[in-house]
Amino acid sequence: MPMSKPSLPKGTRDFLPEQMVRRQFVFNTVTEIFEKYGYEPLETPSIEKLDVLSGKYGDEGEKLIFKVLRRGTGLEELLWGLDEFVVKKYNQLVDEALRYDLTVPLSRVVAMYQNELNFPFKRYQIQPVWRADRPQRGRYREFYQCDVDTIGTESMLADAETIAIVNEVLSSLGFEKFRIRINNRKILNGILEYASIKPSKSFSVFIAIDKLEKIGLDGVKKELKEKGLSTEEANKILTVLEVSDQPEEILSYLSSSFDEIDSMREGTQELAELISYLEVLGVPKDRLTIDLYLVRGLGYYTGPIYESVVQEPRIGSLTGGGRYDQLIGIFLGRNIPATGTSFGIERIISVMTQLEMFPKIKTKTQILVTMFDKTTQTSSLSFTQELRNAGLKTESYLGLTRLKRQYSYANKKQIPFVVTIGPDEQAENKVTIKNMQTGEQNSISREGAIEYLKNQCLA
Amino acid sequence: MPMSKPSLPKGTRDFLPEQMVRRQFVFNTVTEIFEKYGYEPLETPSIEKLDVLSGKYGDEGEKLIFKVLRRGTGLEELLWGLDEFVVKKYNQLVDEALRYDLTVPLSRVVAMYQNELNFPFKRYQIQPVWRADRPQRGRYREFYQCDVDTIGTESMLADAETIAIVNEVLSSLGFEKFRIRINNRKILNGILEYASIKPSKSFSVFIAIDKLEKIGLDGVKKELKEKGLSTEEANKILTVLEVSDQPEEILSYLSSSFDEIDSMREGTQELAELISYLEVLGVPKDRLTIDLYLVRGLGYYTGPIYESVVQEPRIGSLTGGGRYDQLIGIFLGRNIPATGTSFGIERIISVMTQLEMFPKIKTKTQILVTMFDKTTQTSSLSFTQELRNAGLKTESYLGLTRLKRQYSYANKKQIPFVVTIGPDEQAENKVTIKNMQTGEQNSISREGAIEYLKNQCLA
Repeated sequence: MPMSKPSLPKGTRDFLPEQMVRRQFVFNTVTEIFEKYGYEPLETPSIEKLDVLSGKYGDEGEKLIFKVLRRGTGLEELLWGLDEFVVKKYNQLVDEALRYDLTVPLSRVVAMYQNELNFPFKRYQIQPVWRADRPQRGRYREFYQCDVDTIGTESMLADAETIAIVNEVLSSLGFEKFRIRINNRKILNGILEYASIKPSKSFSVFIAIDKLEKIGLDGVKKELKEKGLSTEEANKILTVLEVSDQPEEILSYLSSSFDEIDSMREGTQELAELISYLEVLGVPKDRLTIDLYLVRGLGYYTGPIYESVVQEPRIGSLTGGGRYDQLIGIFLGRNIPATGTSFGIERIISVMTQLEMFPKIKTKTQILVTMFDKTTQTSSLSFTQELRNAGLKTESYLGLTRLKRQYSYANKKQIPFVVTIGPDEQAENKVTIKNMQTGEQNSISREGAIEYLKNQCLA
Repeated sequence: MPMSKPSLPKGTRDFLPEQMVRRQFVFNTVTEIFEKYGYEPLETPSIEKLDVLSGKYGDEGEKLIFKVLRRGTGLEELLWGLDEFVVKKYNQLVDEALRYDLTVPLSRVVAMYQNELNFPFKRYQIQPVWRADRPQRGRYREFYQCDVDTIGTESMLADAETIAIVNEVLSSLGFEKFRIRINNRKILNGILEYASIKPSKSFSVFIAIDKLEKIGLDGVKKELKEKGLSTEEANKILTVLEVSDQPEEILSYLSSSFDEIDSMREGTQELAELISYLEVLGVPKDRLTIDLYLVRGLGYYTGPIYESVVQEPRIGSLTGGGRYDQLIGIFLGRNIPATGTSFGIERIISVMTQLEMFPKIKTKTQILVTMFDKTTQTSSLSFTQELRNAGLKTESYLGLTRLKRQYSYANKKQIPFVVTIGPDEQAENKVTIKNMQTGEQNSISREGAIEYLKNQCLA
């Protein structure tokens, strides 16, 4: 076989053990919280039929779908006569593609197994997705998504639980100064109705509003003008959006001023209900903001929308989601209400790395048992196994080499304890334990050592 | 958007929560044991460059590699003029492919990060792989592999640890009657040398030997004849292979009869060393068999090889591995010794399902708190949150609906406890707990209920 110079495809990454320890810390934390709230795991295949994915992600998204070459036909057959019926042949070439997000597969699952699932169906899903995007700092072609969704209930309780989970996950990971911004698409629709904007224009108006942080108020005004809104219409919208106050004040302003607009009234009631549940669920009030400018880019939201932003340091949104009562209908033919959020898990990991928020461990291994020499090898090996049987994560050094090298291995990997059994220790039925952080070293009995290390490592 | 009738690509599967609970049980068990032995997690991208994968899996394997269509060019550009330079254009069309196994990516990682890794490098990896195989019962196009390997030591300690892990994993999962079959490629090479078979023929002879269980002794003889071996040569080989006895007896027979053949002597010494370590590591002797017929299909093994087989019921091998001291050299240009095993994790899950070896749980949720009515909703919700804060996996029923329907939801999901707070309970600051298995029902104080449920669920 020829020697190949190895490299990685653009936009992909290897995760070496030190990084995996961090990633697993985050994945385990979120999973534990999801399960505490009664959400259950789901996994879907990495490959979906192309027609399941097509038409779901907009024109830009469509281009980014990774396509998989058809299997089972030879190269020649595939390419023969391709110039004749290009599109037909293309369909023969490509009929499957890699998962692009977790929401479309969830919708497919709900449609396919509607008779087997228990509704409300609460699921979480943590799997990689692929997008053929131009790779750049912080943007990859393969990355994990982490979603939690509730399917089959219109109750605002579901939205409230989702937000409570966001609050608990970010707190547990160590984020302190973050806010959860909340809005409702029904309120946004109501504001456009109030300004007499045609519903056909609404999504492009939303997109302009969403850019406030990026382009400022004047920028938004300019964009609204470009979308064909008069200055009067634009001002009418912006005057409402600009309201900034405590949630209760905003809600009472909205319900007193726009009660005659149906969708405004419904949206306001939903938010009021949502916020009352959040209080019962223990989400601190000072973390909640009603922000009427909040849009969330996706077209399919129909009710409450929410995102979390870390304010110090200023790093933008870490999670985002909302209610999408009509998306599943695309697959099922009838609507099923749904709500949920996505955790920007790669972003969270990268921010936590930058801010040094991770526990400072490079390895999960707790103890290295060295191999002093041939005469003590059996004692060392059996002691290793005793430590493992006590539940301690223990390595034997694999091979007979200078003790210095074995210590340096433990040092590089930052293994906290090194145990050595030399001929003296063996004769006295003892072991020597070195605490690699303090440098402290003690010889104690084998039994005593197991107890000591259990106390140190299983605290 | 048009409605699409959803279905799955051939050979792929969704894992609904009930299946995920089982899969996670297996993945968690193996992970815990891997980490107890000091192995560390690694993840590599799903997509590898085609030239990293090409030429590694034999002609048959090559055909099964899932290829990914090149990104960033339009359909027309891709297909234009394809008849002119078919192969060149094909290379433009396809340059990446999906992971086919975990060993080649590991070798690539070792080659790429040789200066960052600590050797011996002990890693485990549990990720999906893709093979465009003809789907059939138990064979999928996307499936998980689970590998544990040690890179950078020639010590038989590494092989012994791998086998000890196999023993502990299968025992922990509940397998009882299994055996670990061990052999050594050096011994097999020695036997061929003893029968004066040319080394160029050795791999095809190995393949014939490997079929013993399938085609019987006469079948093997016939195949060996077809490969060009004389009856005398074949008999000479088979007489040695047929030796069946306790490990010590086989080893002493081999070392006394073939000591002048270098590779035989080395292989026998390695096995003797390996078996002595296994004893210290606590692997029961009656689970070990030296089986000279054992070949393991892959071309790259160089030393000890091993597999585990469940004997009752007879279900063939669940794990298989061995030493491959020359594979990494393909990427690196110089050899690095390596050994490890693969767990047939999908097979293990399917066998455990058939044999009903899984704990009988359909959900991880431990408690459902019902929503009796609007007046008690806040109490119910705050009690839910108290249970969660106590570490209990708890759902609120999301929405106000008939209590019967809420109980039936708990029943279908087999949630073990249902808590209800009606107006009476609320007035007395109590809750009613129903044990869904026994039907028993009690009203107790909120604080008492939390203690009771903690005792029941966190045991």
